Amino acid sequence: MAPILLNCMGTEQEEYIKPQVHVKNPHLDLMEEDILYHFNLGTKTHNLPEMFGDVKFVCVGGSANRMRAFAKFMHQELGLPGNTDEITDICEGTDRYSMYKVGPVLSISHGMGVPSISIMLHELIKLLHHASCRDVNIFRIGTSGGVGLAPGTVVVTDKAVDSFFRPQFDQVVLGKVIVRSTELDADLADELLQYSREMPDLPTVIGNTMCTYDFYEGQGRLDGALCSFSTEEKLEYLRKAYDAGVRNIEMESTVFAAMCRVCNLKAAVVCVTLLNRFDGDQISTPHEVLVEYQQRPQCLVAQFIKKRLGLQA
Amino acid sequence: MAPILLNCMGTEQEEYIKPQVHVKNPHLDLMEEDILYHFNLGTKTHNLPEMFGDVKFVCVGGSANRMRAFAKFMHQELGLPGNTDEITDICEGTDRYSMYKVGPVLSISHGMGVPSISIMLHELIKLLHHASCRDVNIFRIGTSGGVGLAPGTVVVTDKAVDSFFRPQFDQVVLGKVIVRSTELDADLADELLQYSREMPDLPTVIGNTMCTYDFYEGQGRLDGALCSFSTEEKLEYLRKAYDAGVRNIEMESTVFAAMCRVCNLKAAVVCVTLLNRFDGDQISTPHEVLVEYQQRPQCLVAQFIKKRLGLQA
Repeated sequence: MAPILLNCMGTEQEEYIKPQVHVKNPHLDLMEEDILYHFNLGTKTHNLPEMFGDVKFVCVGGSANRMRAFAKFMHQELGLPGNTDEITDICEGTDRYSMYKVGPVLSISHGMGVPSISIMLHELIKLLHHASCRDVNIFRIGTSGGVGLAPGTVVVTDKAVDSFFRPQFDQVVLGKVIVRSTELDADLADELLQYSREMPDLPTVIGNTMCTYDFYEGQGRLDGALCSFSTEEKLEYLRKAYDAGVRNIEMESTVFAAMCRVCNLKAAVVCVTLLNRFDGDQISTPHEVLVEYQQRPQCLVAQFIKKRLGLQA
Repeated sequence: MAPILLNCMGTEQEEYIKPQVHVKNPHLDLMEEDILYHFNLGTKTHNLPEMFGDVKFVCVGGSANRMRAFAKFMHQELGLPGNTDEITDICEGTDRYSMYKVGPVLSISHGMGVPSISIMLHELIKLLHHASCRDVNIFRIGTSGGVGLAPGTVVVTDKAVDSFFRPQFDQVVLGKVIVRSTELDADLADELLQYSREMPDLPTVIGNTMCTYDFYEGQGRLDGALCSFSTEEKLEYLRKAYDAGVRNIEMESTVFAAMCRVCNLKAAVVCVTLLNRFDGDQISTPHEVLVEYQQRPQCLVAQFIKKRLGLQA
């Protein structure tokens, strides 16, 4: 397309050339109705384009309380009118997930672990598709265990890797294993790192994030109900992880990266570390310190959103 | 031990010979404090033996609302004094899980998927151990997709199997895969089946339960954001599952069976089917019918508890 043509286009056309969220499922076109069961939403019962058509930023995190707090925080940051107490849970008919919308920002909880976030992502991606959303950025803002970092450090994920330090997600489809890439958007990560440097008290690094299927044995913790290894074996595993570029450990990043990539969503994972796993396993940091740590990924992503919306120089 | 000795023993001694909940972790004895982070409980901040020492029945399920409703229901069924509105969430300082105690019954939510229930089980087993609980039965009461069964049928799990129909749970420990048995307590399952026959409108079968890591591609659904297979391929997989004895599909049973077995907890999985997967994928049954279905596992387990407590002939 010639540049001159692009210059002549109005806002509507400009919007049109921006990338749409893709579903990769030919069966969906044949369905008369699509019930997004775990959101308690559906294409016949709700006007999804009207409700969600203007969404440009989706932020997801494990805890429902934290994602409600983030929605209220974004409401203030964006200078939107009205009282933050009036922000209601769009999924209030179910307790599986919570969802809040403030302007172009959607804030959703996903529970803990790969299966829980995977259900949410399937239904979120269908929601964005049904609502004809374009040019959407998605962020996972969460907590994690740090590997060789001071507690409170924010890690923007370079590669999401599995328990064997491979940048891949193994998806079982009809009893067969399919391997998907967990590559994230490098530009998004760089942009986030750059903004973090402009902010006080926001120590941030880019590193690999290991995603495990449990919090105890899979992460080498010595304090679960089951533990069959020694302190030295634990430390050896963490050292291997560190050598593979892993700087933090959490439980959702691989499937998040894999699904967003397939569906054309620019994605970033931004998690704060609550402890340094070389120093221990239990999270014994005082509550008020943990609360401040948990706000750090929120502040960084809020900064990104404000920059993109031209609200911040 | 001679029977005459047993007959001479008082209640306290009788209690003592009942099996204790085991942790399998030598490191725990060396810890000065154990913080059950996702429950917001700890050995120094809470008197766990006093709070939980009399627990004999633990019931777990995905939804926090459903487990609160179950606690209220059990309060009525056990004829306990006081108002059910006064039953409070023991984990109210966190939104990761909800926990309610009514008499000897503990009702806990576990979220969706293997990782989420696994974190809960590690901390629950440690809790029962710290509280010196003995002779505990544990039930997962949940929802599932049926395989060749009429919707509303309750399935008491014989074997919990993985996506390849194997009765095993693969646990990653420090980057190595360890295989654990998913065998459940056969006597418990038979006893539940027997009680179901005494109850009206409680169609119940014993069958294998397949546990998957996601709700869409892993269960052969055609209605996710991603789907690369045909209707015929889906049905072929479900037929193979049926031939392997699978009667329902959910997302937690393998790790539940595996961990309870290792830790000496007699365990049963009791899930109602919300639909017959041979007939479709979407859950479009009216809300009030689904609510009635979801009460069925609760009613069956309540009957079991009342029988064990001598409250029901």
